[in-house]
Amino acid sequence: MPPTPDPAMPTIRLHDLAGLDDLRFSPYCWRAKFALAHKGLSCETVPTGFTGIATVAGGGHATVPVIEDGGRVVRDSFAIAEYLEAAYPDRPSLFGGDGGRAAARFVEAFAVASHIHLSRAVLVDIHDVLDPADRGYFRESREKRFGATLEAFTADPDAAVERFRDAMTPVRLMLKSQPFIGGDRPLFADYVLAGTLMWPRVVSAREILAPEDPVADWFGRVRALHGGFAEAAPTVSTTRRGIAGRGGTD
Amino acid sequence: MPPTPDPAMPTIRLHDLAGLDDLRFSPYCWRAKFALAHKGLSCETVPTGFTGIATVAGGGHATVPVIEDGGRVVRDSFAIAEYLEAAYPDRPSLFGGDGGRAAARFVEAFAVASHIHLSRAVLVDIHDVLDPADRGYFRESREKRFGATLEAFTADPDAAVERFRDAMTPVRLMLKSQPFIGGDRPLFADYVLAGTLMWPRVVSAREILAPEDPVADWFGRVRALHGGFAEAAPTVSTTRRGIAGRGGTD
Repeated sequence: MPPTPDPAMPTIRLHDLAGLDDLRFSPYCWRAKFALAHKGLSCETVPTGFTGIATVAGGGHATVPVIEDGGRVVRDSFAIAEYLEAAYPDRPSLFGGDGGRAAARFVEAFAVASHIHLSRAVLVDIHDVLDPADRGYFRESREKRFGATLEAFTADPDAAVERFRDAMTPVRLMLKSQPFIGGDRPLFADYVLAGTLMWPRVVSAREILAPEDPVADWFGRVRALHGGFAEAAPTVSTTRRGIAGRGGTD
Repeated sequence: MPPTPDPAMPTIRLHDLAGLDDLRFSPYCWRAKFALAHKGLSCETVPTGFTGIATVAGGGHATVPVIEDGGRVVRDSFAIAEYLEAAYPDRPSLFGGDGGRAAARFVEAFAVASHIHLSRAVLVDIHDVLDPADRGYFRESREKRFGATLEAFTADPDAAVERFRDAMTPVRLMLKSQPFIGGDRPLFADYVLAGTLMWPRVVSAREILAPEDPVADWFGRVRALHGGFAEAAPTVSTTRRGIAGRGGTD
């Protein structure tokens, strides 16, 4: 996936959440994919559904991303970024120093705090792009977590989108000072928030950011990085089955 | 103000917004004071009211903080932090590297985005602690900015406090990972947000954060730094005139 992998480097395996049509929608997996691309590391992604996570990389993992780098297995997007930064110090930095690493935790919290609004906008859309084998687990776990049916929880997606746009106000303000959260160049903090935005982009045709929003410009800049692999990633709007697949089987 | 100034270093002058009873309430000036203390630099603060800003440090400045370090004059809290980082590189870093400096811009934007809620909670309280000579300017400029009288703008302070607390959700989440935005230690990003919280603390008896809120714990940790100068700073609750001074003259 990275545009300029070094043939001398071993290929890292990334276990990546996938739906129908190979739609890769996990915000956390996107963070890891951006981080690998930033480091210019050769990477092979292995698609898995929700119900397949338990058996990836030898088993024992509750969530993805999980990477396998030679014999080392690392789970959790932030831990993966920290691992890559330590294991590949000669590659471009993901954090720009200790202060940047710590602040990326704040950006991570900022991004996660916005997920509730995106969930209210696209949770049904996620369900509909899942392999039928994963839908029961997804519906049950999310309905338990949110205390409502998926349909009730997403009953007012327009309001949820408005709240998400409002939550992005700090990003909008910051972009008056600099083009990336990392300053003149992207860092892991940018990938954290870009992962959040890849999530609705992949599963839903809904417009999450207004086209004239500076945050949309920033997101476009991040998608264009590293050969544009994120820009080119399949979305429900670019795949036939995603659009026609509501309730269908693979 | 810093606890351990180096006698060999020149004293830096900081022009600091002040109200009655020497109440120092400007969030931006607090950022600069924390930054100077973090660097362990000897600092003399010079109080000024809003209407006195135009004449500080030779004139031509629209806002404070303004510092004078020997012959150099620097305005704007972020510019001051960048200046101190460059001018005193052997002192503790304010940013922890380029990534931290860039991310501090995001934290600055995050803090500023929350100011609207604090304004709706304490703008009248600010007015009431100002020197009478500054009150006309303050009322007129703020009422023009917000399109409402101070009293109408602050008509529902409880709701504003709730919105502010909600806006602090990312900080609360981050504190599960680390004690400061700077990680294990405070950096300028912490001082940016602490400056925001010093503002209502100094001018208002209103409880902005619930005592059990982890964000309140963090704010207490920041106030305790550098000899506790922020903890010890006069507030409207610790000064008689502040409490009795509504409408009074000095």
